[in-house]
Amino acid sequence: MPTYDATTDPALKAFFDIPAESHFPIQNLPFGVFRPAARREPRIGVAIGEYVLDLKVLQTLGFFDGPKLRNQDVFEERWLNDFMDLGKAARVEARQVISDLLSGKDARLKDDTDLQKRALVPMKDVVMELPVQIGDYTDFYSSREHATNVGTMFRGKDNALQPNWLHLPVGYHGRSSSVVISGTPLHRPMGQTKADDAAAPSFGPSRLVDFELEMGFFVSGGNALGKRLSMAEAEDHIFGLALVNDWSARDIQKWEYVPLGPFLAKNFGTSISPWIITLEALEPFRVAGPAQTDPEVLDYLKPVRKDQTYDLRLEVAIQGEKMDEAHTVCVSNFKYLYWSMAQQLVHHAATGCNMRTGDLLASGTISGPTEDSYGSMLELSWRGSKPLAFPNGETRKFLQDGDTVIMTGWAQGNGYRVGFGSCEGKLLPVSE
Amino acid sequence: MPTYDATTDPALKAFFDIPAESHFPIQNLPFGVFRPAARREPRIGVAIGEYVLDLKVLQTLGFFDGPKLRNQDVFEERWLNDFMDLGKAARVEARQVISDLLSGKDARLKDDTDLQKRALVPMKDVVMELPVQIGDYTDFYSSREHATNVGTMFRGKDNALQPNWLHLPVGYHGRSSSVVISGTPLHRPMGQTKADDAAAPSFGPSRLVDFELEMGFFVSGGNALGKRLSMAEAEDHIFGLALVNDWSARDIQKWEYVPLGPFLAKNFGTSISPWIITLEALEPFRVAGPAQTDPEVLDYLKPVRKDQTYDLRLEVAIQGEKMDEAHTVCVSNFKYLYWSMAQQLVHHAATGCNMRTGDLLASGTISGPTEDSYGSMLELSWRGSKPLAFPNGETRKFLQDGDTVIMTGWAQGNGYRVGFGSCEGKLLPVSE
Repeated sequence: MPTYDATTDPALKAFFDIPAESHFPIQNLPFGVFRPAARREPRIGVAIGEYVLDLKVLQTLGFFDGPKLRNQDVFEERWLNDFMDLGKAARVEARQVISDLLSGKDARLKDDTDLQKRALVPMKDVVMELPVQIGDYTDFYSSREHATNVGTMFRGKDNALQPNWLHLPVGYHGRSSSVVISGTPLHRPMGQTKADDAAAPSFGPSRLVDFELEMGFFVSGGNALGKRLSMAEAEDHIFGLALVNDWSARDIQKWEYVPLGPFLAKNFGTSISPWIITLEALEPFRVAGPAQTDPEVLDYLKPVRKDQTYDLRLEVAIQGEKMDEAHTVCVSNFKYLYWSMAQQLVHHAATGCNMRTGDLLASGTISGPTEDSYGSMLELSWRGSKPLAFPNGETRKFLQDGDTVIMTGWAQGNGYRVGFGSCEGKLLPVSE
Repeated sequence: MPTYDATTDPALKAFFDIPAESHFPIQNLPFGVFRPAARREPRIGVAIGEYVLDLKVLQTLGFFDGPKLRNQDVFEERWLNDFMDLGKAARVEARQVISDLLSGKDARLKDDTDLQKRALVPMKDVVMELPVQIGDYTDFYSSREHATNVGTMFRGKDNALQPNWLHLPVGYHGRSSSVVISGTPLHRPMGQTKADDAAAPSFGPSRLVDFELEMGFFVSGGNALGKRLSMAEAEDHIFGLALVNDWSARDIQKWEYVPLGPFLAKNFGTSISPWIITLEALEPFRVAGPAQTDPEVLDYLKPVRKDQTYDLRLEVAIQGEKMDEAHTVCVSNFKYLYWSMAQQLVHHAATGCNMRTGDLLASGTISGPTEDSYGSMLELSWRGSKPLAFPNGETRKFLQDGDTVIMTGWAQGNGYRVGFGSCEGKLLPVSE
């Protein structure tokens, strides 16, 4: 049975109409950073239907007067970090205040049309900005299906999974400077590559640019250097989730990655969706992940509960410049991931590595069991051997200049959706 | 012939005595961040002999009145980043002001004993702090001797270097949160390891903790996402250098690193020396690096000058808790590195990856051609097969709890040294 708190009750309704297919019903309340108009300063908001609720306005009016938030000015900041750093209790408190205002239980917004005009900004008028100052970005490799697909392509079916894969969440440090907000176009990278039949490598535009469908989470309150985190406390250090497109250059990766792992193949851009869905909003959508019994995981990674993941439908669509609309190429689900977010976080901190508020940990490509659920072009086109066909007759093995990749995802409730909106990015030609 | 500008002239002397073996003569002027006493706020300073020159005091008095610095308050900040972001011209201007004050050419400090008391803080009284807010930390693998030694141990002499190694500076993204200032003790990490003869991995204290002797440089002014850097402009984006100890857990690394590279084996701590020596101070010590003619490097990595590295003697000493003094275990040199800093930076940005002021790029272990010049215990003890003997009868294959690792380095001028001071760290037992 799903667990509902006062803010996730399916019966709850905003005092204004929100369509059933909206990603932002009153049960969601995801946090983000927006500009009310292109030239104005970024501020913190919450998505609600077709509007953004301006939290700075509410804070200035003293609406956040609970024990955790009343002496804070975290909603007057440009970044979410200071709010995130206050931890779960402050987040729960903020959600309750916002929920009450939007439901009309607290009538101060419902009954004040002037305040509504100031605090509810039409989403179509805002520009979204990167919501979090990201200290370190780490990328995992937590989908068994994805690791198996890649391993099968490069090493054959019998050696698909490396010996360590089922024992620990494999991951690597990524590049935080090039994490960008949805909507930011990226240039096709230049790089050093070597064809199998070439005598020497050459430098030029990558020919195998790919997307990777991933989910990321942000750390909320970390651990001191030298201290570890336990599975029991891990989820209390997670603020919420966002969609991640970990753009990849497969030909650069192939030549550079032995023995120290992917480097330039991954650092030319990582797109994230603008709205961060909190763990509180996802609570009703908990489900069990894959069984971790063969082999049993080591004690430090043992889940404290069975339903350690979430049922989140994920989709990827591509729209080329000559296409009239985007065409869905992948339907996957967050619940397919073998390793949970809690396990990723605990493993990351196991050496005493200090996790900091604002760190981004991404899942790695989320592929499902069927061919239409693979989360990258590499897998969907099976290394280019099965080009994808599009309705207008075009085909793709990898991405072409001008292609826009659109990711979306949501949890389906009874009559409502708790969603991320979208994570979009257009691939531009190599820059001069 | 060495190139000397007005601040590196060997004939220049401070108006007070500085011993010939000091690392901080008037030619050096390295930048750092210090607390005048444990409880006071961190501030920016320059090391000079046995003193730290307090730049905030000088800035407040309006001494930095040149075109680049007169409208700035960069020396009133807690971090060096804003100063670094002003670029080379501002750095050169600051060095000239400081040099003139310390030589007495500008007599305002020399003739004012009250100001000397305020601006010259005895180094023995200060606490050094992390000088730079590090955005991203990247670690390279640029010593041919080190890569060959490691490759020989794990794959045999004939396949020691991977096919890509001579074509590009192999590197990987590291963890910036755990970069600490010299003097910070670190705990032995816990981690997942698997012995060759064990059926399954286990979780416990790493048994093979190692140091890595490295040099790091800080980026000063970066490139926009999607833009690249050329070899001709690369050095203008480098602020200066610091010693780096990239602590490593070899047993964790061995089990985790396939296929995505080192992760937890490297993220429990990276120590840096507190003083950053600018490229201007190192200019007289330029030398040619190893020939890069077999194979020729690709055009985008072609050096614009022959003497693209520096003659910097590097030493590592270890002092166990039962030892009366530290014992030198390695003498190496920065000039042994195959890939230069300019090449590392240009390669890193080749995809359009945006480099930011404050990013730290480290060289990888700097090993030389002889057995006493190897920059890690892994190589010095040849994977534990040749334990190091210490004067008190103790031996080491890898580091033991309580061992302090002390790195130092300097350029030797005629009668003076331009040095880094030291980069020290003690290995504590696993934390509770």
